[in-house]
Amino acid sequence: MSARRKVYVEGSRPDIRVPFAEVELSGGEPPLRLYDTSGPGSDPAVGLPPLRGPWIASRGDVAPVRGAGTPLAGSRPTQLAYARAGVATPEMEFVAIREDVPVELVREEIAAGRAVLPANVNHPEIEPMIIGKRFLVKVNANIGTSAVTSSIAEEVEKLTWATRWGADTVMDLSTGRRIHETREAIVRNSAVPIGTVPIYQALEKVGGDPVKLSWEVFRDTVIEQCEQGVDYMTVHAGVLMRYVPLAVDRVTGIVSRGGSIMAAWCLAHHEENFLYTNFAALCEILARYDVTFSLGDGLRPGSIADANDAAQFAELRTLGELTEVAWEHDVQVMIEGPGHVPMHKIKENVDLQQEVCHEAPFYTLGPLTTDIAPAYDHITSAIGAAMIGMFGTAMLCYVTPKEHLGLPDRDDVKAGVIAYKIAAHAADLAKGHPGAQAWDDALSKARFEFRWADQFNLSLDPETARAYHDETLPAEPAKTAHFCSMCGPKFCSMKITQELKEYAARGMKEKSEEFLDSGSRVYLPSPERVPALLASRACARPASASIKALLVDQGRTVVV
Amino acid sequence: MSARRKVYVEGSRPDIRVPFAEVELSGGEPPLRLYDTSGPGSDPAVGLPPLRGPWIASRGDVAPVRGAGTPLAGSRPTQLAYARAGVATPEMEFVAIREDVPVELVREEIAAGRAVLPANVNHPEIEPMIIGKRFLVKVNANIGTSAVTSSIAEEVEKLTWATRWGADTVMDLSTGRRIHETREAIVRNSAVPIGTVPIYQALEKVGGDPVKLSWEVFRDTVIEQCEQGVDYMTVHAGVLMRYVPLAVDRVTGIVSRGGSIMAAWCLAHHEENFLYTNFAALCEILARYDVTFSLGDGLRPGSIADANDAAQFAELRTLGELTEVAWEHDVQVMIEGPGHVPMHKIKENVDLQQEVCHEAPFYTLGPLTTDIAPAYDHITSAIGAAMIGMFGTAMLCYVTPKEHLGLPDRDDVKAGVIAYKIAAHAADLAKGHPGAQAWDDALSKARFEFRWADQFNLSLDPETARAYHDETLPAEPAKTAHFCSMCGPKFCSMKITQELKEYAARGMKEKSEEFLDSGSRVYLPSPERVPALLASRACARPASASIKALLVDQGRTVVV
Repeated sequence: MSARRKVYVEGSRPDIRVPFAEVELSGGEPPLRLYDTSGPGSDPAVGLPPLRGPWIASRGDVAPVRGAGTPLAGSRPTQLAYARAGVATPEMEFVAIREDVPVELVREEIAAGRAVLPANVNHPEIEPMIIGKRFLVKVNANIGTSAVTSSIAEEVEKLTWATRWGADTVMDLSTGRRIHETREAIVRNSAVPIGTVPIYQALEKVGGDPVKLSWEVFRDTVIEQCEQGVDYMTVHAGVLMRYVPLAVDRVTGIVSRGGSIMAAWCLAHHEENFLYTNFAALCEILARYDVTFSLGDGLRPGSIADANDAAQFAELRTLGELTEVAWEHDVQVMIEGPGHVPMHKIKENVDLQQEVCHEAPFYTLGPLTTDIAPAYDHITSAIGAAMIGMFGTAMLCYVTPKEHLGLPDRDDVKAGVIAYKIAAHAADLAKGHPGAQAWDDALSKARFEFRWADQFNLSLDPETARAYHDETLPAEPAKTAHFCSMCGPKFCSMKITQELKEYAARGMKEKSEEFLDSGSRVYLPSPERVPALLASRACARPASASIKALLVDQGRTVVV
Repeated sequence: MSARRKVYVEGSRPDIRVPFAEVELSGGEPPLRLYDTSGPGSDPAVGLPPLRGPWIASRGDVAPVRGAGTPLAGSRPTQLAYARAGVATPEMEFVAIREDVPVELVREEIAAGRAVLPANVNHPEIEPMIIGKRFLVKVNANIGTSAVTSSIAEEVEKLTWATRWGADTVMDLSTGRRIHETREAIVRNSAVPIGTVPIYQALEKVGGDPVKLSWEVFRDTVIEQCEQGVDYMTVHAGVLMRYVPLAVDRVTGIVSRGGSIMAAWCLAHHEENFLYTNFAALCEILARYDVTFSLGDGLRPGSIADANDAAQFAELRTLGELTEVAWEHDVQVMIEGPGHVPMHKIKENVDLQQEVCHEAPFYTLGPLTTDIAPAYDHITSAIGAAMIGMFGTAMLCYVTPKEHLGLPDRDDVKAGVIAYKIAAHAADLAKGHPGAQAWDDALSKARFEFRWADQFNLSLDPETARAYHDETLPAEPAKTAHFCSMCGPKFCSMKITQELKEYAARGMKEKSEEFLDSGSRVYLPSPERVPALLASRACARPASASIKALLVDQGRTVVV
């Protein structure tokens, strides 16, 4: 009986321990190690151990306080600064082991701004991960927590649920009266980078009126979140006053909340976006904590009709300009993207973003490839996400089945994460990421050899795969390879393949006689064995007509 | 209250009545007409009316018998023959109206072999449809019926369920003791073309032993099904003896049932595939009934590892050779394709198929873009299906969530059809099919204008969209536009867009003062209005921070 368990791979120092989900296989192969985002698990009351604590302290640019520390005056303790200085940090080594690539590649990609390693000096609890086109495509899940009714345990449970299914980062959209304590609980218990949209909390502070917003209120909010350990922040600094009119004739206008807030502010004050005019000052703040920019696309399209329009691309060019300013301050940057885009217009988004943003990592929402399927937008967008990932997008923000309709529940969050892990892995395969196909090959081989337990353990969602299988075949023995005989030795494609190997070695003529002499015929099973046959049909080996006969005698559909 | 109802558009003669699902809209636009596959509905005991009866009779090449008739000696009453002779048949006109294209385009595409109009002269009940890259991408659903336990009513109910959600054709994989009567029930009650894989029934006739198969048994089975009215048949005539060894070193060998059957036969007899050696004779039979070939890909890859390999492409070239032979006999042809293909290898499949098969329509199963997600293969394959459709594939054979694991039930069939309708429409958008985007635009506009009822009626699955919405907002009034006020007049992006229109007309300075004078602030709603806000947030209009605050006070996740 094979199993799936967590293992750690140690780096150059004992405190660099990289987690993997190791799947034992029964086909004679070595165990397969899969990327693992689930984290070490924690006692919500205590929080996670500060894995990065010693690493941060040893760099001497942060004065130890509380969890981690406060940056020393004038210091820029960012991974970008270290990478540029030729320093491979423990965080970089951790990521290199996790992605199975040379640490030098990690350092070079970060130094060039082509990848980001979001890791606030005040979030020592994270297991470092990297976002960049040369690495595995990542998935973000959004959670919004209740500051009123939820307990810390509940917050952590939501976080754990998202990362259990593979979320690489989580955006905390929490707000309300206890927003600070809520975010504290999330950050202290999160092994993945946490992202936020500070303008939301700033808006809370001014009673929800965008017109009352100011640079000062926003700045103080950002500092508060930097101190807490938020790893990356969405900032809609590219929504310039002159771009807003470009959205006038759209079918769906401005659909980004942050974009609307800033548009409303510009509208009321007839002044330029204060996030843009104060961007350099903002960079100085983020640099002190190594908080990564996620430059928001406030004018992203909200429908197929508005995709790739003047408003969207005008803002994108400004984000490229801001990227250079951030880099001058040693601040890491990624760029947010759409939204709703038909398939034939997806590549243009990545190509233009890579060009005007100087190859800064692209982080997209979907995109949805059609607007006609509300209730299935995890699928309409997984199609676009897989494609945009193949073209070079580094991280995909998930969409759940409830998008546009209501509030995603626990099941919707899982459905969204799984759909996006599929899109991300399909993109990894298409990009030829080293090691990506080994996972597919291991599962395909297990399937072909009827190693059901291996198939389940290798699945993105072992529980559901096993449950579907057990609907027709609950028995444990059914999960073993001797199924083969149920379809008849002469009909199993494995057997046929075996015979062919012999053919290749010896001539075919006598072999065919021998084949006939052996009385080749398709084994006709007894009805009570139907369930087993059904399950075996469902593996990669073709079902014999006799199986199919019994299959359809169940009055069910089968795929030809 | 808008509605969705079936309407008919009359052609050049009163008996050409083309069905559409017409959606009344409340935004001042004219009703939107959607392609409709649901059929007129029927009394299983009686069957559908023979819509095509008069059309077939009037051509004088079929002697009326039973439902339709028996082809006169030597006649080739195929749509291909008529198209080549410059004749636009009522079937072609029906399709032209259905696709909203000139009938001459339909005739030309059929004449050139770039499209097929599957319509057995003995299946007068169908509402003609066309499969070709210049037309809407189509979806096939497989059903396998019970010859033992199911009643005729049950057979028809399964058929109806698949076409209700949008299946353009249905493959009947029925078998068993009452296979003939079962298929009869399906054909007589189907308004969509019915496809079969005759080798399955032939195998039944020889006790399930592939070695006992013969050309004679197969031929008689094909004639029996032609007489009954089957519209297209999968024939694995491209599995040549010399290709089989090419599959020896594959990870998943031969996974096509038909392919394995023929491989086993060749193996046992050491003779060339009898479907290949008797192909011309087979063409003569299909030509008499206008049955369309669906040339099967018996060596299609069963895993990412085996995609685009020598075995697959060797067979494909032979299918191209057979396509020309079929065309010489005025027989319509489409080509079946994979299977399992990573994204970056999908285009090569279409390009090669179009080249070596002389642009005959491509009909693919998926393809799955990764093997790691059993239980979610409707998604792994919808990604590949959308892409291969964009590249020119004419029809997509669906995959359900139970693929590789067990038997799809009613919900799985729906999930598979919906996922594939999404893929097909996303491809139509990407190909710029005339009229495709009108559907997206209508829904996006309804979304932006809070016309919930219109959104539901325009959805691929109105029931589920409405159900998801009602989870948070059951009340009828909530489905009306005055939601807008709930987010505050100054914060609704529609309002902002309106303001901007005025800005465009008048200068911005005084407008901004006026905006401030009007006391712009975000309306802060009372808690009991949260549900409505939640729903309104879910539309394309951005939610205000105050909404989000209440949103997350529900402890739910939201998409940034």
